[in-house]
Amino acid sequence: MNYNQVFDQAIDRLHSEGRYRVFIDILRNKGQFPNARCFHGHNGPKPITVWCSNDYLTMGQHPKVISAMEDALHDVGAGSGGTRNIGGNTHYHVELEHELAELHGKEGALLFTSGYVSNDATLSTIAKLLPGCVIFSDELNHASMIAGIRNSGCPKQVFRHNDLDHLEELLAAEDPETPKLIAFESVYSMDGDVAPIHAICDLAEKYNALTYIDEVHAVGMYGEHGGGISERDEAAGRIDIIEGTLGKAFGVMGGYIAADQKIIDCIRSYAPGFIFTTSLSPALVAGVLAAVKHLKNSSEERDAQQANAASLKQKMADASLPVMQSETHIVPLMVGDPVRAKKISDILLAEYGAYVQPINFPTVPRGTERLRFTPGPAHTEEMMNDLVGALVEIWDRLDLELAEAA
Amino acid sequence: MNYNQVFDQAIDRLHSEGRYRVFIDILRNKGQFPNARCFHGHNGPKPITVWCSNDYLTMGQHPKVISAMEDALHDVGAGSGGTRNIGGNTHYHVELEHELAELHGKEGALLFTSGYVSNDATLSTIAKLLPGCVIFSDELNHASMIAGIRNSGCPKQVFRHNDLDHLEELLAAEDPETPKLIAFESVYSMDGDVAPIHAICDLAEKYNALTYIDEVHAVGMYGEHGGGISERDEAAGRIDIIEGTLGKAFGVMGGYIAADQKIIDCIRSYAPGFIFTTSLSPALVAGVLAAVKHLKNSSEERDAQQANAASLKQKMADASLPVMQSETHIVPLMVGDPVRAKKISDILLAEYGAYVQPINFPTVPRGTERLRFTPGPAHTEEMMNDLVGALVEIWDRLDLELAEAA
Ligand SMILES: Cc1ncc(COP(=O)(O)O)c(C=O)c1O
Ligand SMILES: Cc1ncc(COP(=O)(O)O)c(C=O)c1O
Repeated sequence: MNYNQVFDQAIDRLHSEGRYRVFIDILRNKGQFPNARCFHGHNGPKPITVWCSNDYLTMGQHPKVISAMEDALHDVGAGSGGTRNIGGNTHYHVELEHELAELHGKEGALLFTSGYVSNDATLSTIAKLLPGCVIFSDELNHASMIAGIRNSGCPKQVFRHNDLDHLEELLAAEDPETPKLIAFESVYSMDGDVAPIHAICDLAEKYNALTYIDEVHAVGMYGEHGGGISERDEAAGRIDIIEGTLGKAFGVMGGYIAADQKIIDCIRSYAPGFIFTTSLSPALVAGVLAAVKHLKNSSEERDAQQANAASLKQKMADASLPVMQSETHIVPLMVGDPVRAKKISDILLAEYGAYVQPINFPTVPRGTERLRFTPGPAHTEEMMNDLVGALVEIWDRLDLELAEAA
Repeated sequence: MNYNQVFDQAIDRLHSEGRYRVFIDILRNKGQFPNARCFHGHNGPKPITVWCSNDYLTMGQHPKVISAMEDALHDVGAGSGGTRNIGGNTHYHVELEHELAELHGKEGALLFTSGYVSNDATLSTIAKLLPGCVIFSDELNHASMIAGIRNSGCPKQVFRHNDLDHLEELLAAEDPETPKLIAFESVYSMDGDVAPIHAICDLAEKYNALTYIDEVHAVGMYGEHGGGISERDEAAGRIDIIEGTLGKAFGVMGGYIAADQKIIDCIRSYAPGFIFTTSLSPALVAGVLAAVKHLKNSSEERDAQQANAASLKQKMADASLPVMQSETHIVPLMVGDPVRAKKISDILLAEYGAYVQPINFPTVPRGTERLRFTPGPAHTEEMMNDLVGALVEIWDRLDLELAEAA
C-alpha cells in the first residue's frame, strides 16, 4: 500500500481533466467594492473588479454591519468560547434567532456555523428522527443538501429538476404511511431558475410529506422584507423548514433554519453538527443582525441589484454572447468546457483586471462549464460595458461560439 | 403518519431522562473575562463568573486579536463573499495557512469553517480516496471524528481508549495490503487525559497506517510554541494529519488541518465540506493570525492556565470533592447523574453567580455525568476559593457523595 501514490493519482486526475483549482488570492477594498486587490501571479497587489462575489448586495461592507461588529468586538470579544450548550450561547445569538424566525413568519430559528452545516445537520437529523423516511430530492440540489441526505442513511428518490409530474409519480409510488420529506431550493444558484413552491407544497399536502427549502440564494434578496422567494410568493407558511445562509446577501457568515418550535427543538437537541461545535462568533452574529434588520426595511439594494443583473444580461445578449436568460439575479455565461472556461477567466484577470471564477464539475454537470457573473448594486454601467467589451474581444480571440441572433 | 407526534416524542424522551438542554444566555465582558452578564431567568443581566469557557487562554479578548479583527473589518469588510474557490480566498487565509503549517512543522495547512467541519470533511474524504480503507478509531473520539468516519462509508474498528494492545490486535488482524488510518485525539476533552502519541506512531509504522490526530484541546496550550502535545512530545513529524480548532485556545472560530502538501491538495480538491461553503470571514482569520503569532512567542498564558488548573484541582481535592486528577488543564468534577448535575449547576448559577454547564450524555457516557471546569489565566485565587466553598455547601445540601480521603 503506497499512500503517496494514491494521493498523487487523485491530483493528477484533476490536472488531466483541466479542473485542478487554483485559488485566486484577493483582498476586497472596503467601501469600494467591487474593487479589490489581487495577489495572484504578480509582485504586489494589483487592482481588480470582482464579478463573482456572493456578497450579492455588498452588505459585507455596509457601515451598519461593520459598526455592529466593532461594537460586539468591544463588548464581548472575538469568539464565543464554547458550544451553544456550554458557554457559547450569547444574547446576540438569541436575538438573531428571534429576528430570523420573524423574517420567515416561523415560531423559531436555529443558527449554524454555515449554510452548508445547516443543510447537512438538519437534513441528516430530521430524517433520522423519522424511521424509514423517504427523501425526495431535486436533482440539482446543492452539495450540502446531498451530504445531509446521504448522511441521514434514508432512502432517497431524486426527481428531475423542478419536474412536478416526476415528483408526483415518485410520491404516489410510496406507501401513504411512509414518512416523506421533499427537499429543494428556491433559486438554483448556477442556472438562476426558481422552484414552483406552491405546486410542490400542493403535492406535499396531497401525499402528506414534509417540505424543506434551501433559500440560500434568495434570503435578503427577494420578498418585501428579504424573506426570500417563499416570502415573495407568499408560500412561507406552507413550508415546514426554511434554510438560509448569513454569508451571501447578509454579507457575513453562518447559516440557519426557521421552522415550528418543535422542529427547532428536535434539531437543537439531536443534531451533532449543531451540538458539538463552537458557536458563531458573537461579532459575526451582531453583524448579521444589523444586515437582516436593514434589509427588512430597505429595498434599495435589492432593486439596484435586479436592475444591474437585467442590464448585464441584456448587454451580453446584445453582443451575442451565450448568456442564459435566467429569471433571477444570476448571470451565467455558457462555455461548455473546463479548459476554455479557465482560459477566458485567466485572460480576464491578467489583461482586463476582471475577476470571475470558472465554474466546473462537480459544481455544475460536465459539459455545462460556465462563467457565473453576479453584478451587485455597486457595479457601474461603465464596468459592465468594459466587461462586455473584454468578453467580445476574448470570444473572438479564442474563436468561441457566439449565440444565435435573438 | 403524524409528524408532530414523532417530534413531540423525541423531545419528551429528553425531558424524561433529565437531559433536555436549556441554553444559558450570556454576554462576556471584554477585558474582564471570566466576568460576564447572564440573561437567564432574571430581569436584566446579572453578573456571573464563567467556569466552562473553552477560550482557554482568554485570547478572545486579547488586545492584539481585537485590533487585528478591527483592522480587517476596515480593510476588507465583514464576510469573504464566497467559497475559497469562488471569490472567497483572501490574502488573510493564505497567510494563516502558512502560519499554521509552520506551527506544526508541516508543508501545508487548510482552513475550514470549524474544527467540527475539519474533522468531518477530512476524515470522510481521506478515507474515501483510499478504497477499502479501514479506520481505527479511539472509543472516546469526538462526535465530529465519528461523523467523518461514518460519512466516509469505510469499515471502522474501535479500539479501547488509549489501549495500545487492543489497537495492535486490531491492526494485526487486517491484511497488510489494506489501507489503514488511525484516528485519535491528543488531549481528551472530557477526562483531560493524553494519548501515547509515539507509541501509536510506532504501531502505525509497523502496520503501515496513516495517522490522524485531533489536537483541538491542545493547540495553543502545549508545546513551546503552542503546537500542541505533538510539539511537546516532539512527535509532530511522525503524524500524517494534525487537526486543530481556532475557536478554543486561539479564541476566535474555525478549524484546520496541517499535513504534507499532497494531502492538503487532495482534501482541498475533493472534500465537499471544504469546497461548497463560504470561507471564514477575513476578520476572524485576521484575529486568529494575531493569536497564533502571539502564542508562538509567549508562554505566559499557558503557564498561568496550567498553574490555575493545578491549583483548582488541589483545592477541590483538599475539600474532598470528587475531582478527577487529570494530567491536563481540564478539571472534571464527577456527579454520575444528569438530574443532579443540572441541579448543582442551577444552584451555582442562581445563588452563587458561578456558571458551569452540566455535561450529559451524549457528550459523555451515561453514568459519568459531570461538571467540567476550565480555569483560565484570568481566574483569581479568590474566585477559586469562592467556587470551592459554594460546591462544598451544595454537596452538603444535596447530600452528595464526597471523595475518599486521599
Ligand atoms: C444552494 C446552496 N446551499 C447552501 C450553500 C452553503 O452555504 P454557506 O456558504 O453558508 O455554507 C451554498 C453555497 O455556498 C449554496 O449554493
Ligand atoms: C475533540 C474535539 N474535536 C473537535 C471539536 C470541534 O471543534 P469546533 O468547536 O472548532 O467545531 C471539539 C469541540 O468543539 C472537540 O472537543
